[in-house]
Amino acid sequence: MSDNRTPLLDKIASTEDLRRLDKSDLPSLAEEVRHEMINAVSVTGGHLGAGLGVVELTVALHYVFDTPRDRLIWDVGHQAYPHKILTGRRDRIRTLRQKGGLSGFTKREESEYDPFGAGHSSTSISAALGMAVARDYTEKAHNVIAVIGDGAMSAGMAYEAMNNAGAMDSRLIVVLNDNDMSIAPPVGALSAYLSRLLSGKTYRGLRESGKQIARKMPRAIFEHARRAEEMARGFFTGGTLFEQLGFYYVGPIDGHNLSHLLPVLENVKASELGPILVHVVTRKGKGYGPAEAAPDKLHGVNAFDIVSGTQFKPKATAPAYTKVFGETLVREARDDNRIVAVTAAMPAGTGLDIFARSFPERTFDVGIAEQHAVTFSAGLAAEGLKPFCAIYSSFLQRAYDQIMHDVVLQKLPVRFAIDRAGLVGADGPTHAGAYDLAYLGCLPKIVLMAPADEAELTHMIATAVAFDEGPIAFRYPRGEGVGVALPERGAPLDIGRGRIVREGGRVALLSLGTRLAECLKAADDLTSRGLSTTVADARFAKPIDTALIDRLANEHELLLTVEEGAQGGFGSKVLGHLAETGALDRGLRVRAMTLPDRFLDHDKPEAQYETAGLNARAIVAKVLEILPRMSEGRSRGGLGVVRQIVLT
Amino acid sequence: MSDNRTPLLDKIASTEDLRRLDKSDLPSLAEEVRHEMINAVSVTGGHLGAGLGVVELTVALHYVFDTPRDRLIWDVGHQAYPHKILTGRRDRIRTLRQKGGLSGFTKREESEYDPFGAGHSSTSISAALGMAVARDYTEKAHNVIAVIGDGAMSAGMAYEAMNNAGAMDSRLIVVLNDNDMSIAPPVGALSAYLSRLLSGKTYRGLRESGKQIARKMPRAIFEHARRAEEMARGFFTGGTLFEQLGFYYVGPIDGHNLSHLLPVLENVKASELGPILVHVVTRKGKGYGPAEAAPDKLHGVNAFDIVSGTQFKPKATAPAYTKVFGETLVREARDDNRIVAVTAAMPAGTGLDIFARSFPERTFDVGIAEQHAVTFSAGLAAEGLKPFCAIYSSFLQRAYDQIMHDVVLQKLPVRFAIDRAGLVGADGPTHAGAYDLAYLGCLPKIVLMAPADEAELTHMIATAVAFDEGPIAFRYPRGEGVGVALPERGAPLDIGRGRIVREGGRVALLSLGTRLAECLKAADDLTSRGLSTTVADARFAKPIDTALIDRLANEHELLLTVEEGAQGGFGSKVLGHLAETGALDRGLRVRAMTLPDRFLDHDKPEAQYETAGLNARAIVAKVLEILPRMSEGRSRGGLGVVRQIVLT
Repeated sequence: MSDNRTPLLDKIASTEDLRRLDKSDLPSLAEEVRHEMINAVSVTGGHLGAGLGVVELTVALHYVFDTPRDRLIWDVGHQAYPHKILTGRRDRIRTLRQKGGLSGFTKREESEYDPFGAGHSSTSISAALGMAVARDYTEKAHNVIAVIGDGAMSAGMAYEAMNNAGAMDSRLIVVLNDNDMSIAPPVGALSAYLSRLLSGKTYRGLRESGKQIARKMPRAIFEHARRAEEMARGFFTGGTLFEQLGFYYVGPIDGHNLSHLLPVLENVKASELGPILVHVVTRKGKGYGPAEAAPDKLHGVNAFDIVSGTQFKPKATAPAYTKVFGETLVREARDDNRIVAVTAAMPAGTGLDIFARSFPERTFDVGIAEQHAVTFSAGLAAEGLKPFCAIYSSFLQRAYDQIMHDVVLQKLPVRFAIDRAGLVGADGPTHAGAYDLAYLGCLPKIVLMAPADEAELTHMIATAVAFDEGPIAFRYPRGEGVGVALPERGAPLDIGRGRIVREGGRVALLSLGTRLAECLKAADDLTSRGLSTTVADARFAKPIDTALIDRLANEHELLLTVEEGAQGGFGSKVLGHLAETGALDRGLRVRAMTLPDRFLDHDKPEAQYETAGLNARAIVAKVLEILPRMSEGRSRGGLGVVRQIVLT
Repeated sequence: MSDNRTPLLDKIASTEDLRRLDKSDLPSLAEEVRHEMINAVSVTGGHLGAGLGVVELTVALHYVFDTPRDRLIWDVGHQAYPHKILTGRRDRIRTLRQKGGLSGFTKREESEYDPFGAGHSSTSISAALGMAVARDYTEKAHNVIAVIGDGAMSAGMAYEAMNNAGAMDSRLIVVLNDNDMSIAPPVGALSAYLSRLLSGKTYRGLRESGKQIARKMPRAIFEHARRAEEMARGFFTGGTLFEQLGFYYVGPIDGHNLSHLLPVLENVKASELGPILVHVVTRKGKGYGPAEAAPDKLHGVNAFDIVSGTQFKPKATAPAYTKVFGETLVREARDDNRIVAVTAAMPAGTGLDIFARSFPERTFDVGIAEQHAVTFSAGLAAEGLKPFCAIYSSFLQRAYDQIMHDVVLQKLPVRFAIDRAGLVGADGPTHAGAYDLAYLGCLPKIVLMAPADEAELTHMIATAVAFDEGPIAFRYPRGEGVGVALPERGAPLDIGRGRIVREGGRVALLSLGTRLAECLKAADDLTSRGLSTTVADARFAKPIDTALIDRLANEHELLLTVEEGAQGGFGSKVLGHLAETGALDRGLRVRAMTLPDRFLDHDKPEAQYETAGLNARAIVAKVLEILPRMSEGRSRGGLGVVRQIVLT
């Protein structure tokens, strides 16, 4: 780690340069790439372990294949830092996930070497198959390669793509990057199956060519094998699961040994066969001690000290919403043994790791399988349990039909804990929780809450525990709360009732969610400008508090709704209500402030909200833009009277 | 077929009665159930073939298991008519899919024998696993059985559930109903794999008990086996795909032979083993000649003549939108070889069967796999093709994340042809296309159209062909068009431009989609009442035609938007625009008419729209409810002037 020179890497401006190297130089090049990546991520933070695990694989793929003419698609994309370093983006690698800098995922706009962007898991085989079919149809001859992790392979989408590809003749190469560790330790039968494959010591060649790829696997890999005692020799005699799905299977291959990888990939490239799966075994965090030792902790990192691996975490001033959720649910579950929790491969990300430590037998990690997670939860609810199904807002999009069809239509009381609502900072637009208020809000009778702070979150959890009549959801942002005192125990809220937080006269700000703090700041500013401002916390996006809305509308000159979501969510319901009741007929200054109708690039969350026009400054500007017309200070009541006189 | 007596069935009021029968009576009972079902569906119409295929299986399951204490979950639910006949709903079986009658699917509200409702495919294993886990957690002992078809097994959701169940110890029974025919002939590697299983003549017993279930399979089943020549003996030696996924595998079993089914199910019931998959082979339409001969044509039927199988189809006055789509796409594709088409196992339902007859090599049926279908389409688009991805509105919910993440975020020009938008009649709430305008409309920059009639549909298809800058979608209803003349060739529309269809003075109706005809009817009525009415066709739900909206708002006393979708869609965008521009500040009578915020039961579509309050009558009533207040007939312009005087 002391030698920072990168003589080989310095020579590589494009993958053409890489392909001009001698094979014997590639291991050294890989070490230089690894070096460069650790250095870069120690400065920027980001996904560390995944990229380190595929350094040799990345070098080998670009060496063997003619990228970018050959299409190389990285599933999820967070392991693509070595790929970025080797494909003309090394000079910007220290801008990873920074404003204006490289994305933490693959991105079409960023490079011709990224033929398909990612961020969510398990999309690569579908995209690659589409590209392969398009290639065949247009009579071209390039290769299409998808690289997908074993965790991602547990998602239904990957199976759908395999099932389709396996029945077609299209020449598609899928590299299964089996690192035995997605974000959390893997779960599910497929994972156990892959372990059995490894422990079986069976090495298989291309069936058609008859060549045997019989290379020794390093001993370390066998140590990964779990459930080895369950292994039956006959289990994969004559065919793997992948062969049964119509793929030619090659592997397992040591993914850190270039003298194994290169000939296999060369054979695969030379083959004329239909879909081929190359099973490559890697180690997450490979080559960096701290990351190898704690692959889960060093999956996504802050900037860190290279020698120790210690991350530079900014001092938290308040607990994160995620943690408040986990700890509150534990407290609730102590008193209610019907509470159970479901996660789709994100125990730590959702705070359910906290729950699992107290209630392992009441925690269900179903793998990267959001569709199943939701309907599994519906099954639990149908039998009288109280499932808390905790999924990030953007990942919950995967289960939209299940929410509508299996939960909401059947009025089953599944509790949705929706983390990462609103903008999410460095992860960028793929992970933004922008749409949940719209896509859930249109579903009949769902109860939809958003806490203004971490104390409110505890109340909403208590509300969800108490509410047993149908589906209920609460959505909260990434990151820290605002630092309010937490109650000993949350108290159930009245369904569909908001609250006035601050009384004023002329302007009403109706906030849904954690923009409340910005609304309060804006109210201070406005009041100091002579525009006395009421601030209300809607609490519920559905059902809306019509009494509160009517009051705010009737008693103020301007009503502004503020929410951390796209158009079509809370504000549109408020407008719809005011239209329907005739309030708008009488002339009503009302505006709905939402996230803008465009994707926002990664940046610091505060900067994203500034760009989005959804902070105190923007709220004040909005009010000042509207109210000057009325700045004579007439009250709305007065106006109404004037009009009534005119009309009668 | 001439003997209509049902002596055994007449004695069965509950499954308790069924279980009191002698085993030797069960084949006769099955025949009576089959009889009853054919008779009923000949009157009501509905799903015919699927139910006929599972008559013996249904009898056997209720005989062996202690329903409803044992939970029996039918995937999709359209095969559950025999189940309904045997579970206390025989007296209402001739009300199937009629107003106030039995649902065409399983439904929790309808019977305690329907522990989980269905309608969409592939949900049963997830729900059943949730129920099995809940049973274990609550220390109960009943059985949980999911019955799922081979087509449904191709969906990712089923795989996610298998993968999760296979890694758990929970005692779950999955019956794979392999009828080699979902709605369309099956596609995909799994289907081929199942065929190989059958052709392998391998009969396997419960691994633990060691009992051999070695019953001869009838010759007919082997005739189903396709790709038999591809079968390699070794392929499943030692384990099936299901075993690799952690299930105990039993089968294949002849699903029409009760003397095979009963002992196997009894063994399975007696077993203490973790998840078990029972592979049952059935024939769709079994026992009814016309349905066996044409299983695709007799999947879903109108009322029909029992002897011939001839369906009583109401005479069409206009071509169905589905057909117009298929035929128009063929015409467009003749001139543009970049056009390709993608369906998720619904070639006939989407009209792509028409396209496939002209362009088989440009048609891709990916199986019941909406997620994959969308990202596969994205891959095609990334390589410069023009994919038309045709999926029903409610099924497209399955691919919401893929639309957002793989298509819209990457601005890939996938064309979404969204059939079955709005209310769908007898299929009821599971199939209603109510949410697409909301869940798509919140996504940035997507172009979203809805044709007012079948000629407009041809223009929108032409628009989608011409528009290559990003994703574009058009949504249209089930059923016939309105009978307008079809143009020789559709003409591309200006993106985001609506049209005035009829000029009037006081009321403006702004319609999106095929409610235009009702708007025109309402306009006639209103005009005859002295309320001169303008009717406009928005054409675009996104981007909205702000110039048209402003004009309608400024020049009329009332603006009413009308759409066949839930709240949060088109109308909410119009309201948002009018709020944002300050038009509402000036007092503007505007209302958004949408589908109501509740689920609507199956009924005739016209009746559903009456219930929904979304027809000419309801539009007129709405206008009359609002405008009397203004019935002195003042123009809005005049009002504005008066107010302006007051304010300045």
